[in-house]
Amino acid sequence: MPQLSKKGIDLPTSPIRKLVVYSDQAKSKGIEVLHLNIGQPDIKAPKEAIDAVKNAPLDLLPYGTSQGELSYRKKLTVYYKKHQIEVNPEDILITTGASEALTFALNSICDAGDEIIIPEPFYANYNGFASAASVKVVPVISEFNTRFQLPALENINDKITSKTKAILLCNPSNPTGYVYSKSEIITLCELAIKHNIFLIVDEVYREFIHGDIEHYSVLQYTKGAQNTLMIDSVSKRYSLCGARIGCIVSKNKELIQNILKFAQLRLSPPTYAMIASEAALDAPDSYLEEVIAEYGKRRSTLIDALEQIPEVEVSHPMGAFYCIVKLPVEDAEDFSKFLLTSFQDSGQTIMLAPATGFYSTPGVGKNEVRIAFILDSQKLIRAAHILEQGLIAYKKIHEQALV
Amino acid sequence: MPQLSKKGIDLPTSPIRKLVVYSDQAKSKGIEVLHLNIGQPDIKAPKEAIDAVKNAPLDLLPYGTSQGELSYRKKLTVYYKKHQIEVNPEDILITTGASEALTFALNSICDAGDEIIIPEPFYANYNGFASAASVKVVPVISEFNTRFQLPALENINDKITSKTKAILLCNPSNPTGYVYSKSEIITLCELAIKHNIFLIVDEVYREFIHGDIEHYSVLQYTKGAQNTLMIDSVSKRYSLCGARIGCIVSKNKELIQNILKFAQLRLSPPTYAMIASEAALDAPDSYLEEVIAEYGKRRSTLIDALEQIPEVEVSHPMGAFYCIVKLPVEDAEDFSKFLLTSFQDSGQTIMLAPATGFYSTPGVGKNEVRIAFILDSQKLIRAAHILEQGLIAYKKIHEQALV
Repeated sequence: MPQLSKKGIDLPTSPIRKLVVYSDQAKSKGIEVLHLNIGQPDIKAPKEAIDAVKNAPLDLLPYGTSQGELSYRKKLTVYYKKHQIEVNPEDILITTGASEALTFALNSICDAGDEIIIPEPFYANYNGFASAASVKVVPVISEFNTRFQLPALENINDKITSKTKAILLCNPSNPTGYVYSKSEIITLCELAIKHNIFLIVDEVYREFIHGDIEHYSVLQYTKGAQNTLMIDSVSKRYSLCGARIGCIVSKNKELIQNILKFAQLRLSPPTYAMIASEAALDAPDSYLEEVIAEYGKRRSTLIDALEQIPEVEVSHPMGAFYCIVKLPVEDAEDFSKFLLTSFQDSGQTIMLAPATGFYSTPGVGKNEVRIAFILDSQKLIRAAHILEQGLIAYKKIHEQALV
Repeated sequence: MPQLSKKGIDLPTSPIRKLVVYSDQAKSKGIEVLHLNIGQPDIKAPKEAIDAVKNAPLDLLPYGTSQGELSYRKKLTVYYKKHQIEVNPEDILITTGASEALTFALNSICDAGDEIIIPEPFYANYNGFASAASVKVVPVISEFNTRFQLPALENINDKITSKTKAILLCNPSNPTGYVYSKSEIITLCELAIKHNIFLIVDEVYREFIHGDIEHYSVLQYTKGAQNTLMIDSVSKRYSLCGARIGCIVSKNKELIQNILKFAQLRLSPPTYAMIASEAALDAPDSYLEEVIAEYGKRRSTLIDALEQIPEVEVSHPMGAFYCIVKLPVEDAEDFSKFLLTSFQDSGQTIMLAPATGFYSTPGVGKNEVRIAFILDSQKLIRAAHILEQGLIAYKKIHEQALV
C-alpha cells in the first residue's frame, strides 16, 4: 500500500463533525439529537433566490467566467456600499464558498513552510486550510474572561517572524461570538502595514450583531488597502449553505490578479448557486432584518437558559451564532460523547462541539464547548434542560467511579 | 505592498484562456470568434437534469454530506457497472468538479516537494493543481508521430525517484485524443505496484471514443486496487460544465478516508449541481448515444477539413474532443494572436489554444495548437477555411518582413 501525504494523515478531524459517528448511533437507537454542534440555518432562504433557479432559462450549463459573473459582482458592490464598503466589481472574485476563498487566499500569499498568525480559539477548519497549503498556524491565545477580545498587541507582535505572511481573523468570530472593534481592526491593519504582511478578515457573519455594536469591516480602513482582504459567503446570510458561494474582496489589484490564476484552474464557480446568490440580493431589506431579529431572540433564549445551569459559564456572544461555554467537567469531549452514547432525556439528547478543536495550542479549552444557537427557541430551551440533566447524570457516574 | 507567494507568481496562465484578452478585443470590433480553444459543449443537457433542479422541493439549502449524497453515489455504482467497473458507494467521493478531485488527490498523496510523473502534452491545468499543492511535475514526452501513445516504459521508469508519489494520466487524453490501451494501463498499474506509488487516471472523456476501440478503466485492473484512483466529472458527458460536479473513485479505503478529511474542510459539494448530476443518470441510453454520434461526426468533419490544408498535420484523435495540430509556422502562439488581432475573413476569425502550455518541457510543441471539435459541423468547416486563409495571410506578412 503506497504512503499517503503526511499533511493528509496529520489533518485534524473537524470538531464540528468528529462525533457524527456517535450521533448516528444515537439516532439509530431512536433517540432524537438536537444539534448544537453545527451552524446549519433552518430559516427559509429568500424566495427570490429559490425562484431564480426554478426560472433560469438554461438547457445546458456552460462554464462561467472564473472570477464570477459581472452582473453578480456589480450587484455586490451595491450591497457592500450599504455597509460602508466602497469597492468595484474588479475588486471582487466569486469563490465556491468561503472555504475556497480561504484556500485561494492562503495559496496566493503563502508558500510551503510560511506562517500565519490566528487568535485562538478560531474556526477549526482554518487549521485544515493551512495544513492543505503546507502553511503553519501560529496561534495567539485570547481569553474567555475578556469575551475573547484581541490579545495584547505585544503578544501578536512577538509571533511575527520572517516567515509570517498574514494575520487571519474572523469578525464577528466563529466560535466565540466576539465582535472586534474599529480600533482593534485598525491596530491590526497598522501592524500588517508595518510588517509588510496581509490581514485577512473573514466577515461572513457581518450582519449578525447582537446589541448596540457597529461592525467595522477591514475594507473600511482604506489606508490598509494594499495589505487587506476580506472573505465573505452567502451561506449563513441567506440560508444558502449548500449553494457554496463566497467571495474574496480586496483593493490590492496584484493580489486579485494572482488569485484569479488559482480561480482559473478550477474553471468557474457553480452556475445554479451563483444564480441563487445573485437573486438573493434582490430580497427586500425586511428579509435580513427578520432573520437577524430571529437569531437575536434565539441568542437571548439560549444565554438565559444556560445561565440558569449551576457551574456553567457562558461567554456572552456579541455576534454570529455561537458561544463558548465552560462546563463543570474535566474533559468536555468525553462529556459530549457521553451525551450521545450513554444518555437521553425522554428520548432526546444534544450534540456539542468540543472546544479543543478550535484551539491549536494543545490542552487549552478542555472544559469548553462551542454551542450554536441556530435551533428555534423552544428547542434551545429544551437543549439547555438536556445539558443540565446530562451534567447531573455524568457527575453521578464520575462520583460513583471515585467511590 | 506585501509579497505574494512564489507558487502563485509562477503559476502559468492557462493556454486555453490566455488569449482571452485578444478575443475580447476582436469581439469588441464586431468580429465573430469561433472558439476552437475550449471544450465548451453546445449540446443540451439531459432534460431529466434540468427538470430535477426546477422541481427540487427546497426552500433553503442546508450543507450536504461531505462525501456527496448516498443516493447519488448508489446510482453511480450502477452507471459504473455498465462500464465493467465494480465499485461500492463508499468507494466514491463526490467533488466540486474534476478540478477539486485532482486537488484532493494530490493533497492526499503528496507533501510539498514531492513529484508526480505525467506524459506530456497533458491537460494544462495539471501543472497548476500540482503547483498549488507545491508538487513538482516531472514530464515524459510522448510523440506526435505515434499519436501520443504511452512513452517507452524505461523512459517513465527512469524518472521515478524517492520523491515520486504518483503517475497521472488522462484517458482518453485531453489534449491529444489518444486512448490508452488495456495493456498500456496494466503496464502502468504494475509499475505503480512495483514502486509502491499511485496511478491516478482522469477518465472524464470515458464515453467519447471514436471508432472501434474499447476504453479500459484503471479500476478494471483489480490487482491494482490499492494503488489506483480514478477521477471523473459530469461536465462533458452531460453538458453540465457549470454544475461543477466530479468524483474520486478508489478501492483503497485508507486513501478515500484521507481524502474525506480534505472534503470535510470544504463542507459539501454544491446542492443544486448534485441534484442535476444525480438526475442526469436517469436519462435514457439514447441520450449519450446521440451525443457520442454527434461528436464523432464533428470529429470526422474537422479532421477531413484540416487534412485539406497544405502543410498542416493532424494527430488523429481516438477519443475526447481534441486534437493536436502541427502548423507550418514557427510560433503557433504568435500565429494564434495574429488571428485575433490582425485577421478576419468576412467578419469572422478563430481562437486556438497554443500547445506549448500543454507541455512542461520548455520549447516543445511551439508549432502546435490544440483544436477542440466541439462546435457544430458547419462552424467547423468554416473554422478550417478561416485557418487556411489565416495561414496564407500570416505567411505573406512574414515573407514581406523578410524582403
